[in-house]
Amino acid sequence: MLQTLPGFSEIEEAHKRIRPYAHRTPVLISTYFNEKTGASIYFKCENFQKIGAFKFRGAYNAISKLSKREGQRGIVTHSSGNHAQAVALASRMNGYNATIVMPENAPKVKVNAVRGYGAAIIFCENTTEARENAAQQVIDETGATFIHPFNHPDVIAGQGTAAKELLEEKPDLDMIMAPVGGGGLISGTAIWSKHFNEDIKVIGSEPKWADDAYRSFKSGEIEPVLRTDTVADGLRTSLGELTFQAIQNHVDEILTVSEDNIVRTMRDIWERMKIIIEPSCAVPVAAILENDIDLKNKKIGIILTGGNVDLDNLPF
Amino acid sequence: MLQTLPGFSEIEEAHKRIRPYAHRTPVLISTYFNEKTGASIYFKCENFQKIGAFKFRGAYNAISKLSKREGQRGIVTHSSGNHAQAVALASRMNGYNATIVMPENAPKVKVNAVRGYGAAIIFCENTTEARENAAQQVIDETGATFIHPFNHPDVIAGQGTAAKELLEEKPDLDMIMAPVGGGGLISGTAIWSKHFNEDIKVIGSEPKWADDAYRSFKSGEIEPVLRTDTVADGLRTSLGELTFQAIQNHVDEILTVSEDNIVRTMRDIWERMKIIIEPSCAVPVAAILENDIDLKNKKIGIILTGGNVDLDNLPF
Repeated sequence: MLQTLPGFSEIEEAHKRIRPYAHRTPVLISTYFNEKTGASIYFKCENFQKIGAFKFRGAYNAISKLSKREGQRGIVTHSSGNHAQAVALASRMNGYNATIVMPENAPKVKVNAVRGYGAAIIFCENTTEARENAAQQVIDETGATFIHPFNHPDVIAGQGTAAKELLEEKPDLDMIMAPVGGGGLISGTAIWSKHFNEDIKVIGSEPKWADDAYRSFKSGEIEPVLRTDTVADGLRTSLGELTFQAIQNHVDEILTVSEDNIVRTMRDIWERMKIIIEPSCAVPVAAILENDIDLKNKKIGIILTGGNVDLDNLPF
Repeated sequence: MLQTLPGFSEIEEAHKRIRPYAHRTPVLISTYFNEKTGASIYFKCENFQKIGAFKFRGAYNAISKLSKREGQRGIVTHSSGNHAQAVALASRMNGYNATIVMPENAPKVKVNAVRGYGAAIIFCENTTEARENAAQQVIDETGATFIHPFNHPDVIAGQGTAAKELLEEKPDLDMIMAPVGGGGLISGTAIWSKHFNEDIKVIGSEPKWADDAYRSFKSGEIEPVLRTDTVADGLRTSLGELTFQAIQNHVDEILTVSEDNIVRTMRDIWERMKIIIEPSCAVPVAAILENDIDLKNKKIGIILTGGNVDLDNLPF
């Protein structure tokens, strides 16, 4: 099936679909980070979203758009992260069965969370091939619908609703930032923001250890992630064709940051803002501190992506 | 000087004074805790307040009410906790010098925070007598004004503004809860809430290991705290005369909770709500879970008091 990027009207439709079921997450400000940067930063707290991450938006939008006939054949995805929980919960909320393919070494806390939302789990080896085969088998046997974690127009449209809410609240942003993993969030963010005001700078950010989007952006071709050990575990993914296209068309710049700065900034956000964020959330904040950017008096929106961490295994 | 309890008009005045300088903290809800209790709980997030705790409200109100002549003679208090930071910051914001008496074994992170707000620190032995003597010496030498952490009408009025904001946002609460240490927060909360709607149940909560307010409430006399080792380090204080009077007049009930439940609930709030709270914040939440209370379909406001914790020394 040929897929095309959603436009702003698909994001508007997604918002209508999601709004009654998702949290409208608060926008926080921090005197500390404003003084440190000279900017006014508005943090869109998707760590407070259902399942603790923005991923609920995309999964809910994609699943609620299915026809009843499609939905009743079931939903399937493979993920060991927030998308797994998002698909599990969004399926249950729509009355559909979900099957999640997870690597057999997935953290128990994530397995339990997915089970808690009523999804079936199929364990497989921790390779891309094994995961795709296991998902394909479910599709072949049941006719279930596969919901890709990011390279999916309805998922991208759903993720764009976070930027839509942020710009409704703070329409005069000069810059909007999100981290880049597979690229679903930055794609939806960029499509909506540039529609809203073409002068807004849309800036992606990545760990240096997973700088595939940065390299792809420069080279004009999708470059794979070369290592998967960044502390920002939500950003270890390479781009898909759709998300790469959105980045090429609508993103102004991609910044990269060191592991040290990710961890230091994460702890700083915990201590100063009293919110629990995943390492991935710290990436855009670290990026404006580490890179030489003119921040003076700028109004900057930053999407904090999620707060699902293992409290027994913190990186600091 | 004879002190009398503030009334609702003093809380209104306090709010006018504080409003331009304090954060209007968000009210969060949690599907998890709503499902667990059958109630609708509204969490007033004073952990996001300036200096990371509600204490800013009372200190700012008391200090900004001083005449310029009084203020210019300086401000003094003794505290190793959030009140120290609150007095330091509120003094600086009003252009006054603050001196904080702290025990010589106070955690370095708290000492640094107070210094960061520009206050002078006098270290003394960790006894009530040594702290009071050191503060008195400052008063005698400089004519500085002493700002008591809770037994002070302007401090109580300031703390009452958190409940005022919560009830502005959720006017139909059946119940409002706060933890009880020295009693400043519950006093301001109770005075405002009963003025707003006399049918609102105002419920204090305490660790069983620091159940002085519970015992005082029952006996009709101020009973001292008997041990000071509860994990809820903000609640190790005995009541003052003013706060005891407010509790006797306006509080409906005081609940107590075990240490285990405080720590378990604290972690639950971190994991489920993605916010950083001090152990003291978990006390009212633990209290409605541990005690046999009819919660079904009740609307409950809970004031989360602060988020200043040492990330290297968590109780779980």
